Amino acid sequence: MNQNQGKKKITVYDTTLRDGAQGEGIHFSTQDKLSYVKRIEEMGSLYVEAGWPGANPRDEEFFQQVQKLTPSKVRIAAFGSTCKVNESPEQSDILLKLLASGAETITIFGKSWDLHVRDVLRATLEENLRLIRESVSFLVNQGREVFFDAEHYFDGFKENPDYALKCIAAALDAGAVMAILCDTNGGSLPEEIAQGVRAVMQEFKPQELGIHVHNDSGLAVANSLVAVEAGVTQIQGTWNGFGERCGNANLSTLIPLLQLKGEYSVVSDSALSKITSFSRFVAELSNATFDEKQPYVGRSAFAHKAGMHVDAILKNQRTFEHMDPAGVGNERRILISDQAGKANILERLRRFEPTMLKEDPLVEKAMFEIKAMEHSGFQFEAAEGSLDLLLLQIIGKFSPPFEVLDYHVWSEPFRGELDSVAVVKVKVGSESVHIASEGNGPVNALDTALRQALVSFFPILGKSELVNYKVRVLDGSLGTEAIVRVIVDTRVGREVWGTIGVSTNILKASAQALLDAINWTIWKFEIE
Amino acid sequence: MNQNQGKKKITVYDTTLRDGAQGEGIHFSTQDKLSYVKRIEEMGSLYVEAGWPGANPRDEEFFQQVQKLTPSKVRIAAFGSTCKVNESPEQSDILLKLLASGAETITIFGKSWDLHVRDVLRATLEENLRLIRESVSFLVNQGREVFFDAEHYFDGFKENPDYALKCIAAALDAGAVMAILCDTNGGSLPEEIAQGVRAVMQEFKPQELGIHVHNDSGLAVANSLVAVEAGVTQIQGTWNGFGERCGNANLSTLIPLLQLKGEYSVVSDSALSKITSFSRFVAELSNATFDEKQPYVGRSAFAHKAGMHVDAILKNQRTFEHMDPAGVGNERRILISDQAGKANILERLRRFEPTMLKEDPLVEKAMFEIKAMEHSGFQFEAAEGSLDLLLLQIIGKFSPPFEVLDYHVWSEPFRGELDSVAVVKVKVGSESVHIASEGNGPVNALDTALRQALVSFFPILGKSELVNYKVRVLDGSLGTEAIVRVIVDTRVGREVWGTIGVSTNILKASAQALLDAINWTIWKFEIE
Repeated sequence: MNQNQGKKKITVYDTTLRDGAQGEGIHFSTQDKLSYVKRIEEMGSLYVEAGWPGANPRDEEFFQQVQKLTPSKVRIAAFGSTCKVNESPEQSDILLKLLASGAETITIFGKSWDLHVRDVLRATLEENLRLIRESVSFLVNQGREVFFDAEHYFDGFKENPDYALKCIAAALDAGAVMAILCDTNGGSLPEEIAQGVRAVMQEFKPQELGIHVHNDSGLAVANSLVAVEAGVTQIQGTWNGFGERCGNANLSTLIPLLQLKGEYSVVSDSALSKITSFSRFVAELSNATFDEKQPYVGRSAFAHKAGMHVDAILKNQRTFEHMDPAGVGNERRILISDQAGKANILERLRRFEPTMLKEDPLVEKAMFEIKAMEHSGFQFEAAEGSLDLLLLQIIGKFSPPFEVLDYHVWSEPFRGELDSVAVVKVKVGSESVHIASEGNGPVNALDTALRQALVSFFPILGKSELVNYKVRVLDGSLGTEAIVRVIVDTRVGREVWGTIGVSTNILKASAQALLDAINWTIWKFEIE
Repeated sequence: MNQNQGKKKITVYDTTLRDGAQGEGIHFSTQDKLSYVKRIEEMGSLYVEAGWPGANPRDEEFFQQVQKLTPSKVRIAAFGSTCKVNESPEQSDILLKLLASGAETITIFGKSWDLHVRDVLRATLEENLRLIRESVSFLVNQGREVFFDAEHYFDGFKENPDYALKCIAAALDAGAVMAILCDTNGGSLPEEIAQGVRAVMQEFKPQELGIHVHNDSGLAVANSLVAVEAGVTQIQGTWNGFGERCGNANLSTLIPLLQLKGEYSVVSDSALSKITSFSRFVAELSNATFDEKQPYVGRSAFAHKAGMHVDAILKNQRTFEHMDPAGVGNERRILISDQAGKANILERLRRFEPTMLKEDPLVEKAMFEIKAMEHSGFQFEAAEGSLDLLLLQIIGKFSPPFEVLDYHVWSEPFRGELDSVAVVKVKVGSESVHIASEGNGPVNALDTALRQALVSFFPILGKSELVNYKVRVLDGSLGTEAIVRVIVDTRVGREVWGTIGVSTNILKASAQALLDAINWTIWKFEIE
């Protein structure tokens, strides 16, 4: 089924690499940006605002290199501002660098709130209109597609609507293809957004109009939706809602919302089914924490914890899911926690014992053990490998294929550099192996030594790798003396799973998580 | 100024301890819940839905203990469901346990979507109305204040509006004080919420009406706002938006939004100024990550990174802030990053050198060094202690008061338990000290040894404590071999600050962060 037939087309203008990068903790290197541009092709035709050439050296470097990529459906836009007060466009370093970037689309922002003209530019209202008019027309005359970001349009419209509209008029008259109405400070209410958009629609009847909002009142998605309903044809936003302060409108939410619940066509069905993995890719690339509670794309978005909900969903999926997770490339998860009823645990046990009944005493036993371990600090929601090992042991389908007899770890300076060394002794069947290994830190040394000692018995360990190592101190008020929870993510091929360890000693907790990772790998690939 | 005069009163019904606890990764012990109830008094008069007595043993324990707390403005509500199909209220274990909890307010949910009646209850539509009617009336006759959560009301209203309204009628006729309209699956659009609320307002003209929505489309805050505008008087939600799947309506956002931007009175001005610290308290209590990008209460909510924004905000605060952060107990932060202009760095340098000018070559030098370090993996946004030390060194106001000559750390089994021991050698002036210390893990052993070696020279170290230890692997694809960034938070009295270390060796990165923490403590309390 093509969900897009007969629907109004909405264009995506993705500013993750520019406004997204203004978010706290978000960083993209030039190489990151190039990877981004290559990968985003899977989303189809859209605009990527990739930086401000001239504002920092990385952005200039990027625009030079991006020209070498094969052209695709992705349009690269360069971002900047109008020329400065008392400056002509021809003298403007900002505008000249925008042209030098080689980008076919150039987006410049200008003031549309009189307060900013007075207090920040310290210029007359007429001078600001000149900056907009002359800057746009200069770029248009150089053959570029020009978009005009009307900065603080909604705040301006509230205080001086005539002037805000004059700024839009200046840009459109000078040849801008489109104005984008910005709620730069993110404080506007949906009704204010609707009024501001309607005024522009009535005054200019534009073919195309954009919206750019921030999330300072938790309304960025709703405000974008309201703007689209009032006539806007282009949505500016960022993946995962990254951006200055509370972030921008979240494309990972807004695209499925408009497409699945509204009457709009934004991306293809196939692109829509990739947004979960794409959103995660963006978070990894920018080195930011992925918000697992995010609508549509978060790991928790279709995760069910209450026993009653799980029970109902097994009867009819619609009872507790507002849509089919597959449509956005996500999946349902049944969580195991001390809130879990038997239905959750039975569902998971049946992966190993398909005919198990709810009345089987092992279900009760599993529930009891899980609750006891969670009470002592374990948390299996992000450590499904450890959970499965526990369940397999309870139903008698797994016993550890090796034993660790002893381990020692030293960290000492060696020729000026800190060196970590682990010595481990393991026993497999009747054979025992004693091995030493170096590593980048005590945990890595221990991991390497364990794998080296075991790989000849279990060759799959040569193909598995640690992809993540997370430490959480459980009692925030005790620092390094508190209980530590370590979660390790392991990958073999395309499969990734988590394992967990809990201890007052971070190295012991790490060892426990590493051993579960090794046990699970062996079970999954050599025993099952 | 009292912001609440002449405004319509909206009541808060806080379900953090019940629906919030159904969120992935959220856990509250009985003691946690009791602390919560004590602390939430500072928010003034509201309802706290504290659990489901009978659904798990912790909740029963909680209701017994909460009776012993001195009564306050906080009303404790117990949550549960109607009696079961073919069961009378008198036989209902659920209802009897709700009564036994002793809670004066009891909220029960019932089905209002015919699909659920058919597919989950597998009962007739009439039987479901009986469950609602008889359960409510049974509890009312026992003298309790009864609220009725109309589960899936909005989905039900879309598919069978007559029946959905009949369910509300059944509860109200039986004596429920209030119905709460629930968007249980979180998939409704604002317009659908408005229609559903308006239908109930027209049909029953209720004095009080509640709204309970989930965030599966990123619209929970907007949908609550729409419901209030359509006539609802009570908002159900959770702090930080915790809750099943994508969470519930976020009270940390919704309360300031309604009160500061809408025409409503929700809490007192003084309570409003405490919501930043209260939201953080709830996250710490539940051991969940606090979303720093949260509107109003997040650390990033008023954080400015772009140099141009900082420049403007120093001219007029309104230019890039939609409200005064102090109103919600938050504060403005000027971030230092490779996007930072000179204005950001100058602002920070002036804390130590108030007369420094923008043209001073040291400003340029500081900017250069910060950008180079961020390029190699440092990130000063959460490590302002390390940032200040760096700046102090650049302007010649700090040189390290001690030197670490050597350190060794061992982790070895000792009488069956893993034991970590650190040996450090430090030099202060012409004296050198060699000390060994045990610890819970290598990092704690190292920290303890360093402090023991130095405390006789710098007594303040006896009063400082580590309150947080965070590890982040920088390259997600390399596991424990990747670069590791360690951030340590230290507290002296009420002051808390972060310091950072980056290395391929986790212990070395930790040592760097610990040494910065010690240096900063000494500088702040013994040198400055």
